[in-house]
Amino acid sequence: MSHSPPRATSSLSLSLSRRRDQAARQSISFLMEQGLVNRNVVSLAAGFVDEETLPVSLVQNAVKNIFGQSSPGQKALQYGSTGGNVNLQEQLLSHLARLEQQDESSLGIDRDQVVVTAGSQQLLNHVAEVTIDPGDICLVSAPTYFVFLGTLNGVGARTIAVESDENGMRMDALEAALSDLETAGDLPRVKLIYLVSSFENPSGVTLAEERRPQVVDLARRFSKSHRILILEDAAYRELRYDGEDGPSIWNCDKTREHVVLAQTFSKSFSPGIRVAYGIVPRDLVLPIHDVKGNFDFGSPNLSQQIVAEVLRDGSYEAHVRLLCKSYTGKRDAMLRAADAYFSDISGVSWLKPKGGLYVWMCLPDSIPTGYDSALFERATKEDEVMYVPGEIAYPIDSPIRKTNEMRLSFGVENPETIDDGMRRLANAVRHVAGL
Amino acid sequence: MSHSPPRATSSLSLSLSRRRDQAARQSISFLMEQGLVNRNVVSLAAGFVDEETLPVSLVQNAVKNIFGQSSPGQKALQYGSTGGNVNLQEQLLSHLARLEQQDESSLGIDRDQVVVTAGSQQLLNHVAEVTIDPGDICLVSAPTYFVFLGTLNGVGARTIAVESDENGMRMDALEAALSDLETAGDLPRVKLIYLVSSFENPSGVTLAEERRPQVVDLARRFSKSHRILILEDAAYRELRYDGEDGPSIWNCDKTREHVVLAQTFSKSFSPGIRVAYGIVPRDLVLPIHDVKGNFDFGSPNLSQQIVAEVLRDGSYEAHVRLLCKSYTGKRDAMLRAADAYFSDISGVSWLKPKGGLYVWMCLPDSIPTGYDSALFERATKEDEVMYVPGEIAYPIDSPIRKTNEMRLSFGVENPETIDDGMRRLANAVRHVAGL
Repeated sequence: MSHSPPRATSSLSLSLSRRRDQAARQSISFLMEQGLVNRNVVSLAAGFVDEETLPVSLVQNAVKNIFGQSSPGQKALQYGSTGGNVNLQEQLLSHLARLEQQDESSLGIDRDQVVVTAGSQQLLNHVAEVTIDPGDICLVSAPTYFVFLGTLNGVGARTIAVESDENGMRMDALEAALSDLETAGDLPRVKLIYLVSSFENPSGVTLAEERRPQVVDLARRFSKSHRILILEDAAYRELRYDGEDGPSIWNCDKTREHVVLAQTFSKSFSPGIRVAYGIVPRDLVLPIHDVKGNFDFGSPNLSQQIVAEVLRDGSYEAHVRLLCKSYTGKRDAMLRAADAYFSDISGVSWLKPKGGLYVWMCLPDSIPTGYDSALFERATKEDEVMYVPGEIAYPIDSPIRKTNEMRLSFGVENPETIDDGMRRLANAVRHVAGL
Repeated sequence: MSHSPPRATSSLSLSLSRRRDQAARQSISFLMEQGLVNRNVVSLAAGFVDEETLPVSLVQNAVKNIFGQSSPGQKALQYGSTGGNVNLQEQLLSHLARLEQQDESSLGIDRDQVVVTAGSQQLLNHVAEVTIDPGDICLVSAPTYFVFLGTLNGVGARTIAVESDENGMRMDALEAALSDLETAGDLPRVKLIYLVSSFENPSGVTLAEERRPQVVDLARRFSKSHRILILEDAAYRELRYDGEDGPSIWNCDKTREHVVLAQTFSKSFSPGIRVAYGIVPRDLVLPIHDVKGNFDFGSPNLSQQIVAEVLRDGSYEAHVRLLCKSYTGKRDAMLRAADAYFSDISGVSWLKPKGGLYVWMCLPDSIPTGYDSALFERATKEDEVMYVPGEIAYPIDSPIRKTNEMRLSFGVENPETIDDGMRRLANAVRHVAGL
């Protein structure tokens, strides 16, 4: 059947784009594949969720209900609207009201300000796409979600790291950074302030309640030629194991004009289902739709209907409660193991997260943790344990970038394996430290 | 609970990116929403598939099988590998071998050269992202898939339209365009040649079998400093109603180095499930993974497993046969209606497609069809029928752009409504022509 032109004598290479080069700096794919493929290695690296707790029977029920009725069944297999399935958007408004502990009617937004995306990474990407031209500025807390740093690289942003402490981004540091930019005449290029507001990936840190209105206030004060947006990534918000959830940064801005709130079901329900959503200012709805329309015409309908269904029947909320119980046990196992294996190694410290999936550990300055470090080599090859090097969570040229930190995830493994992994990692650290 | 900073006295506008401006030129979202929302209008516009034929029971069975076993069930809800689910990739290799009518072992590619994406638009987007820097060149047949024109705009490509006839892109025109670019010293900027090889959206035209090796040959001949890629969009390939399918362009390149083949289940199975795939040259696998990893970490797993399941058990193939029967009836209804209502309007002609979803109709030069035309106004408002203006399927600055054509889709409506829609459209044309 097919034609066979003569084989070219020599093979020319491809000529790829600069964006591709920037994307290649990110190594999330590498890390994820390692976690999925090499089953001998204990993964304290992958930000996956626990496979045992995935809501198989809830999804089964939801699918049965969806396909039980002919019309919703067919709609689940048809294209949807770019911004999302209407039922899901409505359920999301109620859900948001529950999280913010207020009446749905007082949220002050319309249904179409809820934009459903295939995972929250997609929303973050779309927001970066529609706001940032090469050379435009995004301020980020540091360390921060390294995949978004790759996105910012991809759109050619100038990324400025703002120091954070155990209460999240420092407001004095943010104000100083904005003032410096104003002095330098660069304020017109400042488009975004990006923060992971709860149980930040990678540090586990939560932005303190008193800082939330402050960041809104700073964004507003420095909005001179145009509106500076805050991109609030609340991916881990519902995975809280201690204390009470407070209002989002988004809810500290009653104008609803300065904050994009990004939330997702990847961590609290199922990553494989790829349903996330953004709450966006009114004048950002159309730009986001335009970009998303060009990109994928809207998110998978079946997934959206499944999430609408589990929100509607309350099984989602019950699932999150179970999930938090399970993760509490795993976090505690990791913290116990840290105490047991690391407390006698001098210069090692770590943060105790109240939620999320990560423990952030700091080693002595003399022990770098990067991909090309002796520790990484030793840990992955000899001790067979994997972590995420902390340095990738800083913009590469940032003066505050540190090279001696690690992100340790308690998401994937069970408590016993977490303990084993921490023991292996302590071994590797001792070995490299010459102890 | 929440803080209330004082409302800003005046609202500043956002400062959006140039990419956003480019995305806004595309109006697919607008068209799709119209088709979904305004139910009074007969839609000969939306490139949707027929809702009645969506495979609800097949998907129900597949889901039952997936969740019937605990481990695949959980995997369906977990993150997957960036490139796609391994089971699906393997099923896709067999499927491709069937389509190309050859042994799987003689395909000459590895499993990881199959990249699964959330709809083929995503693959097209990724290929554009990794190959094109602003000012780089993509040659397209014209008219062509207008959403991809938007994607090319988005990455800042210089898009050059190559004339096509009823056998697809003209090879003499392609050769002339490449020669001109070489003379102008622009060959190093030529990255892609984009063609919809079967039942093109919008024209319904199929690239003739003898032209397929020719386009490969031209791409190779003009690959001087780097490899020029052919991006073959075969989205409609399986929707054939007359004649036999031949080899893809991809299969005319035995080196497997020059062609990216994009195929999808959106048209032949379910658009809502968002599963498509590309067959990519070996050295493009990692670049595509990097970009996709940054974008969404891989496509929804449940959707991928559903497609793997219906490919495995043969129900997909049976479904496509049924689907083609149904669409044959709808195509015939549209062509009959064209004869009945348009054949006495002078200067009107149309193409008779052997597959796909579209009839391409050409009006007299004196009757423009654009969004701001009298015809569009009259058709949508008075006669309540919607079509896609042909001009959006040409690069906006192309010298060969025509403004008097229409894409008419027989995808969504049933045969009676198609007939009614064509009658309404003929009414509108007569009215505007003063007949």
